[in-house]
Amino acid sequence: MDIIVQKYGGTSVGNIEKIKNVADKIIKTKNTGKSLIVVLSAMSGETNRLLGLAHQISKHPSDREMDMLVSTGEQVSTSLLAIALHEKGYGAISLNAHQVGIYTDKAFTKARITEIKSDKLIKHLNDDKIIIVTGFQGVDTEGNITTLGRGGSDTSAVAVAAAIKAEKCEIYTDVDGVYTTDPRIVKNAKKLKYITYDEMLELASLGAKVLMNRSVEFAKKFKVKLEVKSSYEDIEGTLIVEDNTKMENVVISGITQKKDEAKVTIHKVPDNTGVASKIFKQIGDKNINVNVIVQTSSVNDVTDISFTIPRINIEDVKNILENLKSDIKYKNYYIADDISIVSMVGIGMKSHAGIASSAFDILAKNEINIDMISTSEIKISVIVKEKDSEKSVQVLHEYFIK
Amino acid sequence: MDIIVQKYGGTSVGNIEKIKNVADKIIKTKNTGKSLIVVLSAMSGETNRLLGLAHQISKHPSDREMDMLVSTGEQVSTSLLAIALHEKGYGAISLNAHQVGIYTDKAFTKARITEIKSDKLIKHLNDDKIIIVTGFQGVDTEGNITTLGRGGSDTSAVAVAAAIKAEKCEIYTDVDGVYTTDPRIVKNAKKLKYITYDEMLELASLGAKVLMNRSVEFAKKFKVKLEVKSSYEDIEGTLIVEDNTKMENVVISGITQKKDEAKVTIHKVPDNTGVASKIFKQIGDKNINVNVIVQTSSVNDVTDISFTIPRINIEDVKNILENLKSDIKYKNYYIADDISIVSMVGIGMKSHAGIASSAFDILAKNEINIDMISTSEIKISVIVKEKDSEKSVQVLHEYFIK
Repeated sequence: MDIIVQKYGGTSVGNIEKIKNVADKIIKTKNTGKSLIVVLSAMSGETNRLLGLAHQISKHPSDREMDMLVSTGEQVSTSLLAIALHEKGYGAISLNAHQVGIYTDKAFTKARITEIKSDKLIKHLNDDKIIIVTGFQGVDTEGNITTLGRGGSDTSAVAVAAAIKAEKCEIYTDVDGVYTTDPRIVKNAKKLKYITYDEMLELASLGAKVLMNRSVEFAKKFKVKLEVKSSYEDIEGTLIVEDNTKMENVVISGITQKKDEAKVTIHKVPDNTGVASKIFKQIGDKNINVNVIVQTSSVNDVTDISFTIPRINIEDVKNILENLKSDIKYKNYYIADDISIVSMVGIGMKSHAGIASSAFDILAKNEINIDMISTSEIKISVIVKEKDSEKSVQVLHEYFIK
Repeated sequence: MDIIVQKYGGTSVGNIEKIKNVADKIIKTKNTGKSLIVVLSAMSGETNRLLGLAHQISKHPSDREMDMLVSTGEQVSTSLLAIALHEKGYGAISLNAHQVGIYTDKAFTKARITEIKSDKLIKHLNDDKIIIVTGFQGVDTEGNITTLGRGGSDTSAVAVAAAIKAEKCEIYTDVDGVYTTDPRIVKNAKKLKYITYDEMLELASLGAKVLMNRSVEFAKKFKVKLEVKSSYEDIEGTLIVEDNTKMENVVISGITQKKDEAKVTIHKVPDNTGVASKIFKQIGDKNINVNVIVQTSSVNDVTDISFTIPRINIEDVKNILENLKSDIKYKNYYIADDISIVSMVGIGMKSHAGIASSAFDILAKNEINIDMISTSEIKISVIVKEKDSEKSVQVLHEYFIK
């Protein structure tokens, strides 16, 4: 049985007309002879409507009840899509997380999938039914409804594809694929035919908003062939695969900018063992994502530590540093909130030397000052002033990708 | 553990303010030291909104998917009520049919409850939680969501009360109890303190709209003490009990009228065995409720058969009679759609002779012509012209109840 899993987001099923259009797209795939499982989000606006009702009652509603509440959105969209498929003469059945057996841990509003049962899915596929599964939701071992957090439906789709050993998991979205950079910034940004899981993971955490990291991690772990495609046009999207051997001469797959960050510099930190870990442990405990960390070499047993954090966490980090001052005895700290992280990602960097120095050269020639640098095997990130961010993306794209 | 089950209908939870009010009512009972299970309908309007979405897609959506769709309404109201109770400082948890274990047969949109598990209910009551259960819905043995049909939340509440052996099941509704007749027709209609299951069953099938028959049947079968109460005022309602020994001198408990009926008369039917059963079998097969049947004595081996049906079924019955004409060889038939069934119900009739003749006498004195009569042990029904219906109720109420 050749099984395709397709995922449609909230805007793709935002009203009755759109639901009928999705039914037509599904039927096109079905008519190629494939077995089909469709994972759906709630109709756009529905989740916010439900959240609004709850917040009229309580500023901090219980996570367990919020999941019970908002998970109804996907149950509505899936049953409506099943009805639309019936109306067009196709066998279809909607299944919620309980009915499939999508098990998660007990972390309400941000649960993680632990197991997906495949027996019911296989039974209905054998009956030649198109199965419509509620995205975003799961159940814990006690039968409580859980939800998977932002972008959860992508994760549901990949996890279902892994459980059923699907040939491919297609993510239908507003964009028609993964681009080398944001086409609003660089006009000749190119759609990628292939990208590796690792590159996609770096791009997602560095500002590309096509897929949530969790779904890509899942796809990588279970080797699920992922494709990002347009909900509206019937064209090829971008395949996310394990090994990009077909494009070995491509060095850089994507260039991103991340503008919502701030840079923290702690000045003259006594260079004792464990000082850095003390700082980053407290920041980590507050669930604050530290992106780039740079520590200068120690001079006279003091050092400077710089790192970036999301701008919304500036106050939290200030509090942490104030509290640590008597303990760590640094001299002072600065926070700059006018920075941007510009990153180049490419698995080809592994085998191409000199990419970093070329990049620095290009930026210097364009009079863009680099504040910090962080590199990994497949990534180079530079911190620049926010005002230079888009120009940095443009000149790097022009040089490395064209 | 003294357990009270309370059921609130859709208008009682129709908006956020009303949900907060219901939370207050629940807390009042909780504070008396009772354990509490609340059964809820969907917010009024929600079920119709969902039906509307489905009917934009299909004129005849599948029953299974419709149940999947509309059952979300109760999940929304129950989680919002749980949040409202938390906000007021009370432990509460919403549970859907799957989570409780409310099992039904597979008759989607009109399922019947087969079993309710009590273990989870008991566990949460032991944790001092107020449990909010989705009314109207169940699951079949394969985990499909089912719904119980019109008035299903009442049935859910009674069934939960039976399963958990509750002290009482309180049905909160727009009216504050069961009245001797419709107060809009008879000004001094009296609220009953008690009524028996059997009387309530007769009243419900004869036009009283307080409770659906199915919930009363369930209550009777499992001896659940039922109380119909006002959602808005904090006053005593009407208790529905097995044996009304406390009111043994009451003869008539209620007088109803049923205006949406029509009378069918089949004239000169050859009086062969099996003729009546032929007619009524075909009518029954179409799910048409025959209310009153009268057959005249046979003269010259022909007889007249009269019966009442809901007016909406007139065309169906016409078709059945036309098709049977060659077989049964009756002479002709008439249908009168300007009739009304006026009924008096009272368990006291069992021990009081002469009620029927008094009733006929009162009606005759008021120049009301009786077209047909049907009596049972605890009921007298007369068919009158629709124009005489309200006056009949008034004069009978004046004589038998005052």
